[in-house]
Amino acid sequence: MTVADIGLIGLAVMGQNLILNMNDHGFTVCAYNRTHDKVDHFLANEAKGTKVVGAHSVEELCSKLKRPRKVMMLVKAGAPVDSFIEQLLPYLEKGDVIIDGGNSHFPDSIRRAKELEEKGILFVGSGVSGGEEGARYGPSLMPGGNPAAWPIIKPIFQAIAAKAPDGAPCCDWVGESGAGHYVKMVHNGIEYGDMQLICEIYQVMKEGLGLSEDEMADVFDEWNKGKLDSFLIEITRDILRFKDTDGKPLVEKILDTAGQKGTGKWTGIDSLDRGIPVTLIGEAVYSRCLSALKGERTRASKILGGPKKGNFTGDKTKFLHALGEALYAAKIVSYAQGFMLMRQAGKDYNWNLNFAGIALMWRGGCIIRSVFLGKIKDAYTNDKGLENLLFDPFFQEATSTAQSSWREVIAFAVGQGIPTPALSTALNFYDGLRHEMLPANLLQAQRDYFGAHTYELLSNPGKHVHTNWTGKGGNVSASTYDA
Amino acid sequence: MTVADIGLIGLAVMGQNLILNMNDHGFTVCAYNRTHDKVDHFLANEAKGTKVVGAHSVEELCSKLKRPRKVMMLVKAGAPVDSFIEQLLPYLEKGDVIIDGGNSHFPDSIRRAKELEEKGILFVGSGVSGGEEGARYGPSLMPGGNPAAWPIIKPIFQAIAAKAPDGAPCCDWVGESGAGHYVKMVHNGIEYGDMQLICEIYQVMKEGLGLSEDEMADVFDEWNKGKLDSFLIEITRDILRFKDTDGKPLVEKILDTAGQKGTGKWTGIDSLDRGIPVTLIGEAVYSRCLSALKGERTRASKILGGPKKGNFTGDKTKFLHALGEALYAAKIVSYAQGFMLMRQAGKDYNWNLNFAGIALMWRGGCIIRSVFLGKIKDAYTNDKGLENLLFDPFFQEATSTAQSSWREVIAFAVGQGIPTPALSTALNFYDGLRHEMLPANLLQAQRDYFGAHTYELLSNPGKHVHTNWTGKGGNVSASTYDA
Repeated sequence: MTVADIGLIGLAVMGQNLILNMNDHGFTVCAYNRTHDKVDHFLANEAKGTKVVGAHSVEELCSKLKRPRKVMMLVKAGAPVDSFIEQLLPYLEKGDVIIDGGNSHFPDSIRRAKELEEKGILFVGSGVSGGEEGARYGPSLMPGGNPAAWPIIKPIFQAIAAKAPDGAPCCDWVGESGAGHYVKMVHNGIEYGDMQLICEIYQVMKEGLGLSEDEMADVFDEWNKGKLDSFLIEITRDILRFKDTDGKPLVEKILDTAGQKGTGKWTGIDSLDRGIPVTLIGEAVYSRCLSALKGERTRASKILGGPKKGNFTGDKTKFLHALGEALYAAKIVSYAQGFMLMRQAGKDYNWNLNFAGIALMWRGGCIIRSVFLGKIKDAYTNDKGLENLLFDPFFQEATSTAQSSWREVIAFAVGQGIPTPALSTALNFYDGLRHEMLPANLLQAQRDYFGAHTYELLSNPGKHVHTNWTGKGGNVSASTYDA
Repeated sequence: MTVADIGLIGLAVMGQNLILNMNDHGFTVCAYNRTHDKVDHFLANEAKGTKVVGAHSVEELCSKLKRPRKVMMLVKAGAPVDSFIEQLLPYLEKGDVIIDGGNSHFPDSIRRAKELEEKGILFVGSGVSGGEEGARYGPSLMPGGNPAAWPIIKPIFQAIAAKAPDGAPCCDWVGESGAGHYVKMVHNGIEYGDMQLICEIYQVMKEGLGLSEDEMADVFDEWNKGKLDSFLIEITRDILRFKDTDGKPLVEKILDTAGQKGTGKWTGIDSLDRGIPVTLIGEAVYSRCLSALKGERTRASKILGGPKKGNFTGDKTKFLHALGEALYAAKIVSYAQGFMLMRQAGKDYNWNLNFAGIALMWRGGCIIRSVFLGKIKDAYTNDKGLENLLFDPFFQEATSTAQSSWREVIAFAVGQGIPTPALSTALNFYDGLRHEMLPANLLQAQRDYFGAHTYELLSNPGKHVHTNWTGKGGNVSASTYDA
């Protein structure tokens, strides 16, 4: 009876592919789905000829699992996860493991880890990235939760995970409680940023340089052989080359509105909540919001004034090199911001996050996989306490080299009226970080002027003082009023 | 016994000043504070010679109020508000009014309005802006909540409110349930944006043009006589002129780190949640976050590469004009974004927001008061259904005129390495809004490529299609997986 190494609930594409992946690596999986037809259909079709077994009830599923039982859910985030946990509990014992592999919001995972720990069940919330293809042939896996679960699931997880070019599995233990889903959330936010950056580069190439889709594809192909080598650059090349049945590029026929109700938004909100300037992801999310206002934009395009445009008269090859440099530098800033956010979350939740390990997990299998992430892994391997990714000698040198190209690209886009919100905010962040003195001194003076909020002196930080700027108002400091 | 027109709880600066303001306008106020000493001290000092009466208990306070009773709280947002409501309820009757004049988060006001309506009590959540000075001599008041409360509190609220230059009170009914505190939140977000824009202009003047504080003050003084005429420009002039005891500008001695744990952050989070690209406030909040990382910035300033700088060789007068234009245009975008957000919230909560009225409420009394808000009032008076502030002929003309200066300023700052995150994001938003076609078509293709998320065609919006981009993957659309 107890034949299966792991049970898997949820037979949508991701779940099916994870099962087949586990089967390829010699594990016996028991498949279960809320609607039982799907189980039978899966066994008779996609899983035909495999060792996969099926179950028609949660009870049957649990009865077929070797101990300690391991049940992984690939179901819709939210209530379904809680519902399945509820259904599983009567058939589990202390020391069994429940893994949530969906896109759950990390506060839910924090709660579930705690609730299940009290019942003796080991909860794991695991980020799973890589889409259908990744799930089938090697996803990036980011498991976090009850540390006692790690030795139990590690053999399966590291076997099915993607492998970095050096063979290391793109899966390691992230940290306690909700750390796995937290890191997955930041991963997705960074994915939003990477995609937005590529979109801006495409817009500059198309509108500013007048390149054809095939010419653009050539550039992305070239970039994919160097330091920008990554999955998203690769598929952008493929997409730009893809022709519709009439021989024209399909991409130009696609409606330019994107949704944003997901983990990118969560990352933006979390960064505001935590007070970390993750500006690039923020702009990427906002860009999707603006893209959704198609009607409003169409009307605006007819009445709002822009600059006069001419044909590009410069050296295209040189400018394309500058574009690549701008993309690279902005990408570095985006990852630096993402790691700043994780650093803060680690402090806030007392998670001992392994940043080199996180970079390695993202190195392969997932949407943001890239050569670049190997460099990030190196940076945190060389200096575990690295304060900021930009302080690593490699990235410091890379941005310092790229910055003049980056400025050239943005100045060009600004002059041409081509929006580059993510490229721009990254440069502004970089320049802001480079400033020992930002203009917040004036801001503090304003707040003290109108609200008696007090300020500190450069010469005496920590001591809050108030100035009677007008000679009229009182010298009372505000306490309840926050303007 | 029942002598007082209104009761006021909370005798910090704001509360005291509101009481004295009400007294000036002929209303009898009963003052109460949790610590009773403060009541006695206030009556014996600041309120000496006025009609103000005091109370040493909530019961006594309520017993002194004319019916229907009106009690206004100026206490710390959060638990204290709920606690005082709890304390008041036994001494109130159906039809009495509780006003929360603190900086409560609007979801709390939505909840309180509902809970109190069930008990027959009329709840009002009112934004109060203008700091100590405003509270004393005329704040901007933004009341929302149970509409039945408005006729009852209107005489007091409109009497004590600031007056626009044409004499109209800067107070009108905002809308149902949490609308008052919502609009106050957006007001504060916009205030964050206005302050950040001024700070960036100051940084460009100081670092890019090498102006002295007195020279900068002269520019702000000049601007304050024209279309930029506003409280924040005025106090910036005063601050720049203000000398420390050693004769040097005090502003340069102030620590450049600002806090951001307030309503600006709420506005940013709300905009992400609602899917509205309020990018300028977002960048303003992030700028405060970055300012807070003083140590990290100091270390970064020593190692991160920037552009070589020279002295400014252009025409300073012309460039200062361009700076003013850039500030004006970015400000228009910020307000346009804020009104977009309120429009969406109005839809989401079914609030019938009066946008001309909101502009008028902000026209005087509050921190963001300005001539400019009169123009916004005109825009919404001329066209109640105005889709976007930028579509109003005045603002359309203003931004179209300003945009070339705006581009010049940003290109200059980018070249000089001076951060202008808010000025830049505003231009990027403007250029994005002007684009009928944004690059989100590529983004949708990417999402369909790696996650089978489907896309729509420009020629057939509403119909979701999936392309097998690689010729390998399946034709299954993703359902549970959101990358």
